[in-house]
Amino acid sequence: MNVSAPATVGSHLFRRLREAGVDVTFGVPGDFVLPLYAAQERFGMRTVVCTHEPGAAFAADAYARLRGLGAALATYGAGALNMVNAVAMAYAEHTPLLVVSGAPDTGCRGPDVYLHHRVKSFESQVRIFREVTVAAEVIASAEDAAAKIDAVVAAVKARRRPGYLEVPRDLVGAPLPRSIAQSVSTSAEAAADPGALQEAVDEVAARLAAAKRPALYAGIGVRRYGLTQAAVRLAEAWGLPVATSVMGKASFPESHPQFVGVYMGALGDPGARAVLEDSDCVLALGVIQSDVNTGFWTANLDEDRRIDFGEQSVRVRHHRFDGLPINAIVEALAARSPVRTRTFAAPKPELPPAPAGNAPLTTQQIIGGLRRLDQSAYHFVADVGDAWFVGLELRADIFLAPGYYATMGYAVPGALGAALADGSRRPFVLVGDGAFQMTGVELATLVDAKLSPIVLLLNNASYMMLEALDEPHSYYHRRPWDYLAIAKAVGVPGERAATGAAFAGALSRAVASKGPYFIEAIIDSSDRSPVMTRLREHLKAGRTPAALAAK
Amino acid sequence: MNVSAPATVGSHLFRRLREAGVDVTFGVPGDFVLPLYAAQERFGMRTVVCTHEPGAAFAADAYARLRGLGAALATYGAGALNMVNAVAMAYAEHTPLLVVSGAPDTGCRGPDVYLHHRVKSFESQVRIFREVTVAAEVIASAEDAAAKIDAVVAAVKARRRPGYLEVPRDLVGAPLPRSIAQSVSTSAEAAADPGALQEAVDEVAARLAAAKRPALYAGIGVRRYGLTQAAVRLAEAWGLPVATSVMGKASFPESHPQFVGVYMGALGDPGARAVLEDSDCVLALGVIQSDVNTGFWTANLDEDRRIDFGEQSVRVRHHRFDGLPINAIVEALAARSPVRTRTFAAPKPELPPAPAGNAPLTTQQIIGGLRRLDQSAYHFVADVGDAWFVGLELRADIFLAPGYYATMGYAVPGALGAALADGSRRPFVLVGDGAFQMTGVELATLVDAKLSPIVLLLNNASYMMLEALDEPHSYYHRRPWDYLAIAKAVGVPGERAATGAAFAGALSRAVASKGPYFIEAIIDSSDRSPVMTRLREHLKAGRTPAALAAK
Repeated sequence: MNVSAPATVGSHLFRRLREAGVDVTFGVPGDFVLPLYAAQERFGMRTVVCTHEPGAAFAADAYARLRGLGAALATYGAGALNMVNAVAMAYAEHTPLLVVSGAPDTGCRGPDVYLHHRVKSFESQVRIFREVTVAAEVIASAEDAAAKIDAVVAAVKARRRPGYLEVPRDLVGAPLPRSIAQSVSTSAEAAADPGALQEAVDEVAARLAAAKRPALYAGIGVRRYGLTQAAVRLAEAWGLPVATSVMGKASFPESHPQFVGVYMGALGDPGARAVLEDSDCVLALGVIQSDVNTGFWTANLDEDRRIDFGEQSVRVRHHRFDGLPINAIVEALAARSPVRTRTFAAPKPELPPAPAGNAPLTTQQIIGGLRRLDQSAYHFVADVGDAWFVGLELRADIFLAPGYYATMGYAVPGALGAALADGSRRPFVLVGDGAFQMTGVELATLVDAKLSPIVLLLNNASYMMLEALDEPHSYYHRRPWDYLAIAKAVGVPGERAATGAAFAGALSRAVASKGPYFIEAIIDSSDRSPVMTRLREHLKAGRTPAALAAK
Repeated sequence: MNVSAPATVGSHLFRRLREAGVDVTFGVPGDFVLPLYAAQERFGMRTVVCTHEPGAAFAADAYARLRGLGAALATYGAGALNMVNAVAMAYAEHTPLLVVSGAPDTGCRGPDVYLHHRVKSFESQVRIFREVTVAAEVIASAEDAAAKIDAVVAAVKARRRPGYLEVPRDLVGAPLPRSIAQSVSTSAEAAADPGALQEAVDEVAARLAAAKRPALYAGIGVRRYGLTQAAVRLAEAWGLPVATSVMGKASFPESHPQFVGVYMGALGDPGARAVLEDSDCVLALGVIQSDVNTGFWTANLDEDRRIDFGEQSVRVRHHRFDGLPINAIVEALAARSPVRTRTFAAPKPELPPAPAGNAPLTTQQIIGGLRRLDQSAYHFVADVGDAWFVGLELRADIFLAPGYYATMGYAVPGALGAALADGSRRPFVLVGDGAFQMTGVELATLVDAKLSPIVLLLNNASYMMLEALDEPHSYYHRRPWDYLAIAKAVGVPGERAATGAAFAGALSRAVASKGPYFIEAIIDSSDRSPVMTRLREHLKAGRTPAALAAK
């Protein structure tokens, strides 16, 4: 791109994205967004065309989780409104995802103009996106464009939540006023109150020193605010055992000797549960007290023993420090020398048996096989269902899943975004048959992008998670498709495995392959992961989520 | 179902749906909606589980177009928010589609409760649906349930636009107060003002009698308000030539000798254009003056020569009769004896040549093959792209397409809904490769439901419609998948056709087959339908949609 060309609304947008580390957008072209497609091509931004808008937004979400910002491009109406669910997930899970929607020309937005893709009024769409974003703006002229673009991008980055920009077709190429074009994007990270910071660090350090069994509980905030290394320093300096929440899985490196497991109340790792529930001082970093994170309210970590580091505040017992961005306080605490040094080494976890033999394949054998992989070689991306709970058994560095919002269909498109955000690892997809039916053909886009995912489809011919939580019903049955044929039809070779031995062989061939590889693992619909088994037992004992939430 | 069992919120809902002619719902189960699934199973309502929520809502939309009401069931958040695009289409295209969303228990909706699938607040979802529906309610108690259900169902039926009901999980089985349970649903059709009706019928009849070349222009309102037979009587009594709008295609039987074609300004049928643009009195029944219907503003039908029958009013020259529901005025007009009798017979349309020979298959040959089918045997369902424009060349009785909102991915799930709404015809799907990539695997659900669609995939390896409207770009290319293998993987046999002779053979085998049949037609990405050719020429001449809209 000729850098001396006058800045336009479009080039300003893509320049801001580039400055924020975005070098690819995900989307589906459609007429109202075509000028943005042409503009990004001129700008040198990589264009990834997905099969369907839900997949494009999921891919951009995964990219955002690893890069700190991700962008989805959509046409007006039929495009953007097909992303609402994915953007809602990004809101719930604190993902800095920007949706850029094309829109009708500024002169065509009167109340009596019936353009295709229009719903109630030309404002319906932005009003919908206001419900699922922290900032949503419609560019109305070249004069307001730069300020709105900068404000939305800054809000998304600072608040780690989605934003929305709507760009009318005729404004993409409109030149910016010269003074605005030269402006520099400013950081929107809030600064900490120095007095509050000092006082809070002093108090937390004193409580850590006084505690008998302090522990660290890392949540999604650690990943979103780039605090993984700070958390490692903090844990090492003070000798703290570390568990993560479900959403925060892999926000702390799980190969670290102080890592004890994923805490999910009575449903998650028993070792992690023992450490946290027995602790007298739990530093909860960026943990959201959601139903899933608390193991459907089976968690037993009362507030007196917990110090909660939220996005902008720290709570200790009955008082709260406000105006403390989580990154400032965690970095400051990690930099503070410990008053009292300890060491901690987690017990070496026992591995499930390796898959072998000619008996029907089991979920435990699958976990045994996955745990023996080099966990540092992959972005693990898990879909909702037992695939997700199998994923919780991994010891991963990167683990992406819709762990709170729990939408299905995330994993295959998520792998696309993860691989393009960080090419140093290979994507490893864990997906059930129900979720694969939703967005599995997005595999084609990974092939188009020359990526080499390993895709493990857990085919139990059912919405097994729902059936496990309920009684049997015919509507939980999923007729098994020839999933392997579908993978091959879009360009991904692979094999089917119905025994332990076959699965072991398939996994080794997948690892050895240079290109994409698909494994369809056939498991019985009554076979379940450890987490699913505990969840089911819990519910059968009458401890329903509603009853627990109401307690 | 035991009819003497006390009515509950759930049974009342399904009773109202049944009374309105709905005997199946489309959806994807998820935990917040499970009590509704169980309730509908007890009630004896048929449950169709789709692969993905966008497909479920499209299927329910097609069902609604034929039955006068359709219902989609969704779980909270991840389910319902995945239907926003389809509901927006239903709003834009006047479809009576009801979305019923499960929701968290009434006791779990506090501001500090972080349940999965939740976004900003528990009200975010209903606020989003208010933007795309005419009525949206959250059931808050057993006491308000019947009134809210009745009001939303009545509004959807009366206004032919979508509605939304949100039912908390714990209320589905709650018994209704006895007095409410006995209430009877009342019709919500508005009555006409008799004086206005008389005066308007008199004036329209006089204008018809005085006109030299009167004509009928049937829009989507004719289909939505069940006025097809009235339109036939009206046309026959007065000897009127009849064209339809694009959205209104097949709202008038296209095998009728007075039918002249689909009017789309300079882009549509030349015969229909000549008749309407040359007429001195066009009765426009339920026509929406959208960009697509007007052939991107190339229509030349000025208001002085048009009498516009809207949903609730009639406009003649500079005056308007309000309070006249379209069904009342059209029925009254059709019942009025003509003052002056004419006859009209449309020229017999020339058929494109039948497909034959070993040269590469062309779009014209495909049209030639389709036109020779018994048009009365099928529900034709077309997706957006050139598949839609090919569909415009048919002479169909039933033709479903997202002809205004223009969302992609409608046709395969739409065929599911159409076939279950009216089993007397076989679904015939026209779909492009881009659209098939979005929702094509929903074919599996047609197989599950024991339906026998014929699916014609026009594979031109591109988003050809976009490319036709623009310059060539790499992002319009769609890598061809092995679509036939995908069809077979979900249980649909078929074949691929790349020549005229192969297509003729495939079509005859499809027609003869008793089960579902898939034809992948290979066409060159530079080959186009007549409408697409005219549209492209139009745009190349600088008559862009924006320029035309602004004129």
